[in-house]
Amino acid sequence: MTDKKREGLTRRELFGTTAGAATVSALGAAGVGAAGGVALTKSMAPRAARAQEAGSHVVEPGQLDEYYGFWSSGQTGEVRILGVPSMRELARIPVFNRCSATGWGQTNESLKILTEGLTPETREFLATRGGIYMNGDAHHPHMSFTDGTYDGRFLFINDKANSRVARIRMDVMKCDKIIEIPNAADIHGLRPQKFPRTGYVFANGEHRIPIPNDGMILDEPDKYRAIFSAVDGDTMEVAWQVIVDGNLDNCDADYQGKYAFSTCYNSEGGVNLAEMTANEQDWVVVFDIERIEAAVAVGDFTEIGGVPVLDGRAGSAFTRYIPISTSPHGTNTAPDGKHVMIGGKLSPTVSVMDVTKLPDLFEDRIQPRDAIVAEPELGLGPLHTAFDNKGFAYTTLFLDSQVVKWDIEKSVQQFAGEDVDPIVEKIDVQFQPGHNHTSMGETKEADGKWLVSLNKFSKDRFINVGPLKPENEQLIDISGDEMKVVHDGPTFSEPHDCIIVRRDIVNPRQVWDRNDPTWEEARMWAEQDGVSLEEGAEVIRDGNKVRVYMYSIAPTFSLEQFEVKQGDEVTVFVTNMDDIDDLTHGFCLANYGIAMEVAPQATASVTFIADRPGVHWFYCQWFCHALHMEMRGRMLVEPRAS
Amino acid sequence: MTDKKREGLTRRELFGTTAGAATVSALGAAGVGAAGGVALTKSMAPRAARAQEAGSHVVEPGQLDEYYGFWSSGQTGEVRILGVPSMRELARIPVFNRCSATGWGQTNESLKILTEGLTPETREFLATRGGIYMNGDAHHPHMSFTDGTYDGRFLFINDKANSRVARIRMDVMKCDKIIEIPNAADIHGLRPQKFPRTGYVFANGEHRIPIPNDGMILDEPDKYRAIFSAVDGDTMEVAWQVIVDGNLDNCDADYQGKYAFSTCYNSEGGVNLAEMTANEQDWVVVFDIERIEAAVAVGDFTEIGGVPVLDGRAGSAFTRYIPISTSPHGTNTAPDGKHVMIGGKLSPTVSVMDVTKLPDLFEDRIQPRDAIVAEPELGLGPLHTAFDNKGFAYTTLFLDSQVVKWDIEKSVQQFAGEDVDPIVEKIDVQFQPGHNHTSMGETKEADGKWLVSLNKFSKDRFINVGPLKPENEQLIDISGDEMKVVHDGPTFSEPHDCIIVRRDIVNPRQVWDRNDPTWEEARMWAEQDGVSLEEGAEVIRDGNKVRVYMYSIAPTFSLEQFEVKQGDEVTVFVTNMDDIDDLTHGFCLANYGIAMEVAPQATASVTFIADRPGVHWFYCQWFCHALHMEMRGRMLVEPRAS
Repeated sequence: MTDKKREGLTRRELFGTTAGAATVSALGAAGVGAAGGVALTKSMAPRAARAQEAGSHVVEPGQLDEYYGFWSSGQTGEVRILGVPSMRELARIPVFNRCSATGWGQTNESLKILTEGLTPETREFLATRGGIYMNGDAHHPHMSFTDGTYDGRFLFINDKANSRVARIRMDVMKCDKIIEIPNAADIHGLRPQKFPRTGYVFANGEHRIPIPNDGMILDEPDKYRAIFSAVDGDTMEVAWQVIVDGNLDNCDADYQGKYAFSTCYNSEGGVNLAEMTANEQDWVVVFDIERIEAAVAVGDFTEIGGVPVLDGRAGSAFTRYIPISTSPHGTNTAPDGKHVMIGGKLSPTVSVMDVTKLPDLFEDRIQPRDAIVAEPELGLGPLHTAFDNKGFAYTTLFLDSQVVKWDIEKSVQQFAGEDVDPIVEKIDVQFQPGHNHTSMGETKEADGKWLVSLNKFSKDRFINVGPLKPENEQLIDISGDEMKVVHDGPTFSEPHDCIIVRRDIVNPRQVWDRNDPTWEEARMWAEQDGVSLEEGAEVIRDGNKVRVYMYSIAPTFSLEQFEVKQGDEVTVFVTNMDDIDDLTHGFCLANYGIAMEVAPQATASVTFIADRPGVHWFYCQWFCHALHMEMRGRMLVEPRAS
Repeated sequence: MTDKKREGLTRRELFGTTAGAATVSALGAAGVGAAGGVALTKSMAPRAARAQEAGSHVVEPGQLDEYYGFWSSGQTGEVRILGVPSMRELARIPVFNRCSATGWGQTNESLKILTEGLTPETREFLATRGGIYMNGDAHHPHMSFTDGTYDGRFLFINDKANSRVARIRMDVMKCDKIIEIPNAADIHGLRPQKFPRTGYVFANGEHRIPIPNDGMILDEPDKYRAIFSAVDGDTMEVAWQVIVDGNLDNCDADYQGKYAFSTCYNSEGGVNLAEMTANEQDWVVVFDIERIEAAVAVGDFTEIGGVPVLDGRAGSAFTRYIPISTSPHGTNTAPDGKHVMIGGKLSPTVSVMDVTKLPDLFEDRIQPRDAIVAEPELGLGPLHTAFDNKGFAYTTLFLDSQVVKWDIEKSVQQFAGEDVDPIVEKIDVQFQPGHNHTSMGETKEADGKWLVSLNKFSKDRFINVGPLKPENEQLIDISGDEMKVVHDGPTFSEPHDCIIVRRDIVNPRQVWDRNDPTWEEARMWAEQDGVSLEEGAEVIRDGNKVRVYMYSIAPTFSLEQFEVKQGDEVTVFVTNMDDIDDLTHGFCLANYGIAMEVAPQATASVTFIADRPGVHWFYCQWFCHALHMEMRGRMLVEPRAS
């Protein structure tokens, strides 16, 4: 093995520049694709325009998609469900956002989910701001695993903006838990444990901050820390955290249940661009789960913010730091259960880590770089890698605006000195791809049918919608010998990441179960008030608190009107007693800013102060019946004596 | 003319029932399509399943759509832009909702738009609720007209939930004005004046309320009123209002600039379903614009809530009430400039009004029903009608789940006694269609290429996404002799209504103009502080108010850090100096719940209290560059002395 292979390529070798700022300038603004360096790999594989054949990806009217696509929406803060291969948006699941249609962020049921997992400090902070965060930056949606493949129980997703992790129930496609990760700032990479099951959800705190971040330490970056968290996916509590060196970026886990790995950049501990890109190398940090659990079990940790925190900085028994060229990015474990691909980002290489080397690494029988078994040069800006079931990997090249298909085994042979070329094919995407994903590609059941490239720019691919453009998620048929882009999919910000799940794995309910825990508090109130959620049409006054119970059967609410006094705190409970698929009702209280969804057999409630006197109609805003428009009633608010 | 034609069909004749409740029961829940009555018209036209040919509607990767589709999103509160015929969602425009991605509802620029058009009473009401409504129920998007066709200036849309009308600039695809309509409750039907230009935007206040609605009148429905409003589309101020009998539903205007018309139901003035459907007939009310303007000009009105209000109840000179079977719904003016289609909803008929009869009607030379020149029986649940350029009309049949194509001229001949059948063809849609729309179909340039049917239910048409199902907007090719459903389009709640606009009419900017009025207040502050929005990197302290100015050029903010004191009121101004298409930046302040979009050449600002001490990273959350992730800085909040 040459020294170069042992050390990894340096940025100087790659770009011929030494200063961070110069690198930035050489890379140029992403939108233009005009940087000189881009030409470097343009000739590595033919960029011939291929005739796009419509066909296999077309889902005719009435036909069903074969896969569920679960999409993060980036800064929109929701999760989207797409059908694949039609690429049609089937649903939006509000998570970190505020949703006008469903009342997410307004119903008592959603407020409980949005607030109960916050730290006391955050609850206090938000008290003057409506009690909840109204925004999120959702990056990485991943399903729970059992035995190395999706099990259809939950979807997990991170919020970089406000340092949270959310869980979505796959039986009803609703978020049921959101927790703030204490001690961490700006949760970025997120992946579930693949084996034996999820189990842990690993979550990277990207930005380095003081711990605790109470203002006692301000402009002293050497005292900032980044933190890696393991969340218990069943309880949605933080099981443990590990302090690391560098800024945590993306992460993944192995198929053996032994290790997790995160790319780290900013080994410099810098706070601006020049400082963060000054070093030639950063690393991937490997976490030994068994050692960490053992330390937690014997109390070998510091409790901070209610969580066991271990020090995993360089030299720790819990971690190993494997050098990679500066600013590595994507972390993707191959379905072969052995190889982990580390995207070079600023280096044209993907570093291939062999998880079977990791026991020796932790026993210090080998050097960190010995765990790297291949490092093919693939093109400019390699970010993320997806997989098929034939031993090929598919890596997005951000700067080249391409996806490169390459042969994992050949990359290992090449690294060992054989004269082979691992690159199989390159295909243009439009433009600047970030994440990509193949059907079932992050499981042991990768099937090699579809690849989605999530592109950050769509320049001129769609009719102009003004200064704020859609991104472009492209569907690529990878079932044959040649990749084919078969669909351009515009999306509102931002299709950050996605997974593509075989439809037999996901089996949601058609209507809610009346015993669902979602409305257990509503049921508690009803029992206390001696009212039936399912059959009630009652107004209970309790001092200046008024509880209004009604149920709905299309096209009527069980209460035609209710009367309250100005200043009352009013809680309205609505139970949808229709049990027909799709027969969702709504409760919209006009000129009060109140609206919520009530799906079949569900209960929803909302609490507000009736401080506006007069006649206010409430109506069903979710189409239900030919006489839907007539489905309404009145809230009469008696004015306060003046 | 027979008496029946003069009076319109009665519900008793149609359904054989007398009580409202019985009608409801006969119609059944909409989701099932199992009501006995549905069988009535199933045999009227063949329901043969047609093989769907993919083809003409497929927009291959890299090809552009031919039409802009502007879609309301119902209770989601936003406007969506779709490409037609690909039916891909190209953009979301936040309007009545709160948007995590763009900061709509949080930036100072959006808060100004969301608050300045509210009444003082509403501003006071919302003061304890974050100052804005967080939800809306957007129904009818319509573009401004000049000389009977779209002019590409503005889009208008109503909010039924909180009684508002919004305007969207077509040059930047952003909402620039939202006004609350005083004296009205729950704005429903909305249409712009077609000739000579928009001009007026007509807006129906659907629900009847006391005027003023201050609580002095509560359970006295006979004192409730519904109100019709004309908004000046240029100034976005209410020009005048007319009190009417009945509940206002949908509206439209003529091609001569003389009249507007609204369907009215609940002539009974009832407050529950049985009362509202007790009568056999309701009506369409016609407004004489010239007479109204003349009355306003001479002061013949009452000023209420700052608006000239006229009494247009039965017997008024400003209005005429034309009897229609109970609960008419859609109101659509044909491109022939002569006929207006009134959807029967509970009657299987569409009533065709001839606008050339209206001068005689207002001069009392004819009876109201004389303005009806056709009333074809089309099927069960006729709601809305769209048009092609060949004299055909396309009406949605809600209960039949069909679209019926019919010949306008033949319907007039049939009404006059000729033995002709106006029905040309029926096609199944999936399921329960509400609004529909043809390409350019509400203008004199209707082109007869595409029809979209916006269906309220999608039962089994898509893979199951849990209890909350997508609706289904179906694309129908109407260019040939036979209608063909060519695309199933699932949508998150709710594709209430849409328009389809030729792409040459809409010409948005690629990047913002630095002189745009959107950030005039930001510029005013910058000038006062002696800072340049475009070149500033400054922190101005003004007591406990701190103004932070920065600009962005990928991948950096001009300020790497700024320091404030706990409790300061901080305003951050960010100007995006990149001028490349698509190069949007964002400003996301972590763990502060703050995020906003800054498109190329735009300025955005946000104000907040820095009441959380410590180190808080701000970062660009809108992908911009290979080093996007490194584009960030720190806000250092010095703790309050304790």
